Amino acid sequence: MSFSPLVDRLLESLRVLPGVGPKTAQRMALHLLERDREGGRRLAHIMAEALEEVGYCQRCRTLTEEELCLLCRSTRRDERLLCVVESPADMLAIEEAGGYQGQYFVLHGHLSPLDGIGPEDIGLDQLEARLDEGGIEEVILATNPTVEGEATAHYIAMQLTGSRLRLSRLAYGVPMGGELEYVDGGTLSRAFNGRLPFTGE
Amino acid sequence: MSFSPLVDRLLESLRVLPGVGPKTAQRMALHLLERDREGGRRLAHIMAEALEEVGYCQRCRTLTEEELCLLCRSTRRDERLLCVVESPADMLAIEEAGGYQGQYFVLHGHLSPLDGIGPEDIGLDQLEARLDEGGIEEVILATNPTVEGEATAHYIAMQLTGSRLRLSRLAYGVPMGGELEYVDGGTLSRAFNGRLPFTGE
Repeated sequence: MSFSPLVDRLLESLRVLPGVGPKTAQRMALHLLERDREGGRRLAHIMAEALEEVGYCQRCRTLTEEELCLLCRSTRRDERLLCVVESPADMLAIEEAGGYQGQYFVLHGHLSPLDGIGPEDIGLDQLEARLDEGGIEEVILATNPTVEGEATAHYIAMQLTGSRLRLSRLAYGVPMGGELEYVDGGTLSRAFNGRLPFTGE
Repeated sequence: MSFSPLVDRLLESLRVLPGVGPKTAQRMALHLLERDREGGRRLAHIMAEALEEVGYCQRCRTLTEEELCLLCRSTRRDERLLCVVESPADMLAIEEAGGYQGQYFVLHGHLSPLDGIGPEDIGLDQLEARLDEGGIEEVILATNPTVEGEATAHYIAMQLTGSRLRLSRLAYGVPMGGELEYVDGGTLSRAFNGRLPFTGE
């Protein structure tokens, strides 16, 4: 219940945003209506435009409104490295961490036979074509360290056996800055098994 | 930095929403683009429509796209009580608390001479006209218990001296369910001065 049908519809619609419940939706709607109509209009306009125009990069499948994304058009990236990730958010996280200078390939999900999500649905045919082009020397399988992510990495690895590509996976271990007490058992035993010689670095 | 100029603009625009920082904006944009384009399109459409159409109720000044808001058109509200609030959010909070069955008047702010906000800017001329219509017997000054809210309540009260209207203000005191230890000194001394006979209710 609120003041008017249209405001009610706005409150309802705002809840499609992740993490937005009834109270937050109300605060957002009133903020836009009372204090920032111009900003709200711009947001509505750009949101509509982005949802219409943004598709997948033809080369790496990340989100872009152009044929090729900014990274695929860049001439400064290492053409020999290809990092396979589940989502554009993972790609952004790796870019923000810095250090990696290669290419990407975005699956937009992981294999999930029970949900009917097979190899074509996550673009593995396109990944194969991309690798057939040549130039790539190492494929970094950076899918999530979850059951589905692992299974997807294994499936891709199996497909690539026989090729001369180097395959790698992100290192497992305890996260930086964490406290051992709060690290889960699976991670801890992985970190033990993968322990490294102490170099004092 | 992200994938494409348009996605970057979407991330930037989402930050007009209150409480939305760079990380939340990214999560929202990717959620809409990857998982709920239809919901996002609806949101963009309704947001644009609401920001264009929603104005003030001609009677109580709350937000509505119609001439009169739902409450002012209702025949079930007590015509003798008028509650003056600073914002539509306050009105909603009182409605959600339940119990009050009278009318409202929304100031959309409070007096603030330093910011150049005078009586006309918060609709006090319109409030006077409303009271001149007759029918109202009590005006409840439910502005915020802040310096500005108090000053605004006092200003309105002064304007109404001489009229036969009863004036009231929300009770001050300790909030329900709170612990005295954490109640601020000003509130606590108000609660002491306004102490009530114990009835065992």
